Amino acid sequence: MSFDRTIRHCRQCGHQVEKRIPDDGDTRLRDICPSCDTVHYTNPLNVVGTVPVLNDKVLLCKRNIEPRKGKWTLPAGFMELQETTAEGAARETVEEAGAQFEMGPLFSLINVARVGQVHLFYRAQLTSAAFDPGTETMEARLFAEADIPWGELAFHTVQETLRRFFADRAAGHFGFHALDI
Amino acid sequence: MSFDRTIRHCRQCGHQVEKRIPDDGDTRLRDICPSCDTVHYTNPLNVVGTVPVLNDKVLLCKRNIEPRKGKWTLPAGFMELQETTAEGAARETVEEAGAQFEMGPLFSLINVARVGQVHLFYRAQLTSAAFDPGTETMEARLFAEADIPWGELAFHTVQETLRRFFADRAAGHFGFHALDI
Repeated sequence: MSFDRTIRHCRQCGHQVEKRIPDDGDTRLRDICPSCDTVHYTNPLNVVGTVPVLNDKVLLCKRNIEPRKGKWTLPAGFMELQETTAEGAARETVEEAGAQFEMGPLFSLINVARVGQVHLFYRAQLTSAAFDPGTETMEARLFAEADIPWGELAFHTVQETLRRFFADRAAGHFGFHALDI
Repeated sequence: MSFDRTIRHCRQCGHQVEKRIPDDGDTRLRDICPSCDTVHYTNPLNVVGTVPVLNDKVLLCKRNIEPRKGKWTLPAGFMELQETTAEGAARETVEEAGAQFEMGPLFSLINVARVGQVHLFYRAQLTSAAFDPGTETMEARLFAEADIPWGELAFHTVQETLRRFFADRAAGHFGFHALDI
């Protein structure tokens, strides 16, 4: 869930950019085109996904792509333009697991400032135990809490979300969890 | 809070990009460099801000920049890299209002899919009625609910957040509100 976002050339004219602070009151170094003055901002990305549940089990996907190929994750991916956070989370759940489900409320919002990401997970109620994972997924499987492969999870935000999900379920009440890691 | 994000040239090598669907299983048109194969993704932006409160009043800022120059807003702006959503909201509140405050919990998450944005507002408790607005703000002022300039608010997400804030306050309980507009 990361890639080279370095800006070397202007997206408007193709000229090589320079790193400097714009003279518009900004206080941060930006990639600025010395030819056409375009300021290139780079901002955090949202990763949106679900905690898909059927009875007492949670759906995890075994990643078939890097990073963390072979590790288990909740279905999630980068939010796209022209969709809401929930629509993106639902899209990823279809793409990665081929699952059938009903979307629930937002469950976790986790800042991962070190990599410029915000991860948002929605609860989802599976309506079938049949899955049809896409090419990004080796296997989609339901796990009871006791069987969650905690040491084989792909991302820290998945672990934090699952941990809170099971804690809330044990407490009999699902909340909304905002945290930073 | 919008600007031209059109990509014409490759950020890696400066060559003109082409719009096509990558052959990696993607289903969306992307700006792809025919020279170095870089795929340029464009993703939604987060706008982060606060609902700063002192006693029964809320702090609003009169915008000194476009868009919506002269209209009133809650302090908010684009989330930057290397900060959390709450840190960004606090930074914007300092930059736009020069306010002193303690951050509270996340209050609203509003999808504005039409413009590729997610707006997040945190509650904040002002610790002083003295403000020192930056260049982006003409005036920072406290408003009682009856005096909110509803017809002169800069953004729909500000209106939706304020409406829910006053409704929750009247109900005696502040929740978390997720909505799409």
